[in-house]
Amino acid sequence: MSVTSSCSWEAEPRIYIENCRNRDPAYKISTTAVLNSLPTWCRPSSVTCRYSDERDLEAFERADVLIAGRLNTDVIATHGSGLKLIQCTSAGVDRYHPFDWLSNGTTLSNASGVHAEKVGEFGLMATLMLHSRVPQIATNQRLKLWDRRLREPAEGCRVLVYGVGALGGAVAQRLQAAGFAVNGIRKSGLAHPAVNQMFAPEHFIEELKRTDILILACPLTPQTHKLVGPRELAVLPKGAGLLNISRAGVVDHLELTKSLENEHLSGAILDVFEEEPLPADDLLWDTKNLMVFPHVSADAPEGYIDRCLHILRQNLEHSAEGLPLLNTVDRIAGY
Amino acid sequence: MSVTSSCSWEAEPRIYIENCRNRDPAYKISTTAVLNSLPTWCRPSSVTCRYSDERDLEAFERADVLIAGRLNTDVIATHGSGLKLIQCTSAGVDRYHPFDWLSNGTTLSNASGVHAEKVGEFGLMATLMLHSRVPQIATNQRLKLWDRRLREPAEGCRVLVYGVGALGGAVAQRLQAAGFAVNGIRKSGLAHPAVNQMFAPEHFIEELKRTDILILACPLTPQTHKLVGPRELAVLPKGAGLLNISRAGVVDHLELTKSLENEHLSGAILDVFEEEPLPADDLLWDTKNLMVFPHVSADAPEGYIDRCLHILRQNLEHSAEGLPLLNTVDRIAGY
Repeated sequence: MSVTSSCSWEAEPRIYIENCRNRDPAYKISTTAVLNSLPTWCRPSSVTCRYSDERDLEAFERADVLIAGRLNTDVIATHGSGLKLIQCTSAGVDRYHPFDWLSNGTTLSNASGVHAEKVGEFGLMATLMLHSRVPQIATNQRLKLWDRRLREPAEGCRVLVYGVGALGGAVAQRLQAAGFAVNGIRKSGLAHPAVNQMFAPEHFIEELKRTDILILACPLTPQTHKLVGPRELAVLPKGAGLLNISRAGVVDHLELTKSLENEHLSGAILDVFEEEPLPADDLLWDTKNLMVFPHVSADAPEGYIDRCLHILRQNLEHSAEGLPLLNTVDRIAGY
Repeated sequence: MSVTSSCSWEAEPRIYIENCRNRDPAYKISTTAVLNSLPTWCRPSSVTCRYSDERDLEAFERADVLIAGRLNTDVIATHGSGLKLIQCTSAGVDRYHPFDWLSNGTTLSNASGVHAEKVGEFGLMATLMLHSRVPQIATNQRLKLWDRRLREPAEGCRVLVYGVGALGGAVAQRLQAAGFAVNGIRKSGLAHPAVNQMFAPEHFIEELKRTDILILACPLTPQTHKLVGPRELAVLPKGAGLLNISRAGVVDHLELTKSLENEHLSGAILDVFEEEPLPADDLLWDTKNLMVFPHVSADAPEGYIDRCLHILRQNLEHSAEGLPLLNTVDRIAGY
């Protein structure tokens, strides 16, 4: 394949695929998958696929499109200034703040939205578990303690979803259908069909007072860092539950642990941690009424990369037609 | 109030209410609740309400209607031959087999069906948990072990519900709506709207071969005693899960434990045990990938007795009109 100057980059892009070794095979981006995902009119002039520890810097420097799950921002800053599009196969890009490594001519697009079905189902399961006090039941099992406490059906149980984007919206939809009373917090304050009442972040504390289960599904940004600390936990009614499927940084884990140990919160389910795998000596493993999930809320083993590559395909189409790209990361907002 | 001989027993019944001490208040049957539940034309000639350890045998012997959560079959045999109706506020009557203590003139009606909303929701939660391998995740937490295994969404996961009555039907309905592929086994083999394919019990072994999650929701009878033993567990595909919301006696717990320990089954959730509370030295507490629930799948703290008394009301109405009563226990079938 040769590059002709008359052709737009979308029609004959130079594509660079970067994989990390030792990640779950679900995240492996193959050349075949990329080629299969492209629009028929798109005939790449080159496709390079390498692990990050065998990077082909020459090909990297020439590339128009970078497809990768984890971004090496230093390398992109020094060798990726020619990139038109970075298609990141992760939804969260918080680890790449601030975006000073990203050249002005490069669009960064993430994988937001590819998790909808899986995360909606996980959110429903985890919220039913919090409502049914399963974290307490699991803690009691460790103690061989039979403590029978009947619970009402979930109908009317008040859930607050912080961050009603792709993840939070999918969860809200399943919860609403299951009879939960779902309110939401989102930066824009814009309504969402699965949310009864939507509030802007300045109403967070006020809304916590009438929340039985708090679900964190926002991106991690400087604004959401340690969003849930001692004050927020104290304002939640006694017996409330917490689910975090966002990023560990949005919760003050030490304060959460205290609130669980003194039984102000009835339970928590965490799927995200500062360090993953969670180290064996971390106190969270043993915290009362806390369930540790190994970051499984959003990703499914099959079709994950294909769904990410569907975004790439749409972006190539949009770019060729002069339309706005999808899932573009806002450098200021940070997601 | 006086009894007039011209009046039918339904219009002026002598009612005896028996409670057990030390049970969860959710099961307390009060005189007020009973009076509020009666049809307006029904004016009881007497209502006696006693704990079982302070039984008023004289009133018991004269009663037309006995309302109780737990039945003392010896007392009923010797002092209850005049009872027209026993309204039992428990759905399971397996502990009263065989029914030789029940006089021919007495109808025994149970509480089957009052649990539908609660148990449907619990069944959905527990099945999602088995599909997501939460029992493994909980066992791993005890070991402080991070073992990340991604799971597909539940869509198409094959569930077999054994016993598609009031409980099993409510669970099947929620599971079908959530995208599970639900088959069923019921004695009659009759179709059910929430079940794709219904089979008679003789097809059980054959159907187990294509089952990812087995849900036991049948009554305990001589036919279902140890229904799931070594052969049934071995026939389930590797990685299958098991949920028991029926009675402990339908599962051979020793064999279940073996199947979980050798990882043929991926997980089990038990809500029912031979002895409740489950004794602290029982091996089930520590069994790998097994979650012990303290018999909370079906009962809700509020409205439980009111829902039972609604059956009583309908039975009084049906009896007065000469219609068949509801929820009558079949002495031969045993439920």
